[in-house]
Amino acid sequence: MAREISQQKKEHDELASSRLYGLTDTIYKQFMDGEVPSVSLPTRTKNNIEYNDDSEVWVYGDRESERSAKTVKGAFQLLKSVHTVDFLIKNHIAQNRGSTLRELYYISENWDIAKFREQPESDRLIEDLEIITGLQREYFHMRPEEDGATMFGPIRIGEETKRGDRTIHCQEDIGESGYQIPFNVENIEFLDHDADFIIAIETGGMYARLIENGFDEKYNAILVHLKGQPARSTRRIIKRMNEELSLPVVVFTDGDPWSYRIFASVAYGAIKSAHLSEHMATPGAMFVGVQPSDIVEYELSTDKLTEKDVGALRSELSDPRFATDYWKEQINLQLEINKKAEQQAFAGKGLDFVTDRYLPERLTELKVI
Amino acid sequence: MAREISQQKKEHDELASSRLYGLTDTIYKQFMDGEVPSVSLPTRTKNNIEYNDDSEVWVYGDRESERSAKTVKGAFQLLKSVHTVDFLIKNHIAQNRGSTLRELYYISENWDIAKFREQPESDRLIEDLEIITGLQREYFHMRPEEDGATMFGPIRIGEETKRGDRTIHCQEDIGESGYQIPFNVENIEFLDHDADFIIAIETGGMYARLIENGFDEKYNAILVHLKGQPARSTRRIIKRMNEELSLPVVVFTDGDPWSYRIFASVAYGAIKSAHLSEHMATPGAMFVGVQPSDIVEYELSTDKLTEKDVGALRSELSDPRFATDYWKEQINLQLEINKKAEQQAFAGKGLDFVTDRYLPERLTELKVI
Repeated sequence: MAREISQQKKEHDELASSRLYGLTDTIYKQFMDGEVPSVSLPTRTKNNIEYNDDSEVWVYGDRESERSAKTVKGAFQLLKSVHTVDFLIKNHIAQNRGSTLRELYYISENWDIAKFREQPESDRLIEDLEIITGLQREYFHMRPEEDGATMFGPIRIGEETKRGDRTIHCQEDIGESGYQIPFNVENIEFLDHDADFIIAIETGGMYARLIENGFDEKYNAILVHLKGQPARSTRRIIKRMNEELSLPVVVFTDGDPWSYRIFASVAYGAIKSAHLSEHMATPGAMFVGVQPSDIVEYELSTDKLTEKDVGALRSELSDPRFATDYWKEQINLQLEINKKAEQQAFAGKGLDFVTDRYLPERLTELKVI
Repeated sequence: MAREISQQKKEHDELASSRLYGLTDTIYKQFMDGEVPSVSLPTRTKNNIEYNDDSEVWVYGDRESERSAKTVKGAFQLLKSVHTVDFLIKNHIAQNRGSTLRELYYISENWDIAKFREQPESDRLIEDLEIITGLQREYFHMRPEEDGATMFGPIRIGEETKRGDRTIHCQEDIGESGYQIPFNVENIEFLDHDADFIIAIETGGMYARLIENGFDEKYNAILVHLKGQPARSTRRIIKRMNEELSLPVVVFTDGDPWSYRIFASVAYGAIKSAHLSEHMATPGAMFVGVQPSDIVEYELSTDKLTEKDVGALRSELSDPRFATDYWKEQINLQLEINKKAEQQAFAGKGLDFVTDRYLPERLTELKVI
């Protein structure tokens, strides 16, 4: 195990270094050839993002914009890029260290005129480097500010940590709250498992309910806590388990327009991170519920839709990710009944209803069990 | 190990049942004696909360208010209390199950006229039951919506989970992100440790920095991630380690008035949970920084104070928790320089500055190392 992840980590580091050097190489050659240095990358505005029908994820279109030293602003951007690349290669990758996006902003204090003026500027630059190199920021050892979610289920993973390798069974070797997903999911190897599917769950309350009710054991399910809009690491581990272990993925959220977007970001990716869709999105993911039709069928406890909810539902009707008969029917039904329900509303039917009846029925309909 | 926690858990369950029955007993006897049932509890308003100089935590004063069936509102409150007590004893404690505050609200749907109208009502009732029984809600198996923070350091704990007992060393048996603290810290036993002190850290970025820099190993420190304003479970585990293992506690936050309140809630408790102070507060906890004087001394990267920051600092000057020469000096200095700094600003001095210089110096001053 150890050797495989170590080997992979070494390859990732080499790849990241060589692609980051690639950028500075380009600029260097432009100087040598007497050209004004410049770098092109896809325009990152909403109208240059397209839904790709084949891969079923959001991707950038053909429009490109240029960072060129012809302007003072462009010259500064290139200077900051070169400083950042230098830092990432020498301080992160070569020394097997990392830092947060916030720390990077502070680190630039020592770069004189190349200092970032505010954190959004350094955040955007890291995104630019992701696009230019075609790699995720985790390859550069950039950490998020807060860590990710937890998972619980019949799978044994190997994790390479800075303190050595760990082998962890995600039911037997962990506490009541589950296995904490690390920020860099590439340091994980899936060793063996006894799972039939993955269920990603929006709220901590429902995640704890499924653990308490033994749903993971009874149905050989890996439970992943989404914690609202999921972090990159959460989406990435779902994607990897889906792809590498051929496990179907279902998503269980509240029944409101914001939760449908949580489902969509797992399944199709998000507009603001279109360059990551191929690493993060799981196009085969299926929506379990809460469906508007469940609200009617089970007479769930509900709240009225707010104006914002109605607006969000209407905008989903024209969102290509929801352009199916199923979603049109459900969204129109929700607008008609003017109600929304939370997943924990199933508690009104008893603490076991969700695991004894609702989920088994829905998963049978979806042909997952 | 297993037997000790099991035994303790059994005692906790019996204690919770008997105190909850105590409430219904009182009401039953009042009925039998021909009295209008009523229950008294401390008035939970700001002017009935006092800072206790001896115990150094917030506690309720002498004023009491009555829930009496003399009024329709009071009668409903007592009816709902009895339903809730019935549910907690029969469905939670007797069956070794639990639910979230949100689920409890939905569960009450089946209580006919005793149904809660909104979740804040059921949340308040659970707090009332904590005050009446003198026990924390964890004894009733009530779960919070989202789970707690993580810790990392030279300690081996035993955790009783519904799937069996776990023994986990918080450096050797966990992944890169640390040990996830369960919602009910009473299910944990401290088996053995090699720690000299506990350092509670506000941000995930700094927590990860200390892990990466090996601070826990070099200084035998248990790192606890506060994740902003800390959850009950986080404060409780700090308190327990402080008391049972006699380990000093230091708190490391950003340098702004909101972060000083995070420190104060660890050290002295919070006004809104005064009835829990004796279980949650660690009066001996010491503030490491970021101190306003550090901003000056280390020329940290800063932001200007906002109007709200200034208001919060002024109100801290009259807060009994900050009524020391040290805090008056620091707060006045901050108002004078009109600046605040984040803990991650130390990254501007290099990634090792905080662990090689700042923390060792401060901890020496505080006589912790």
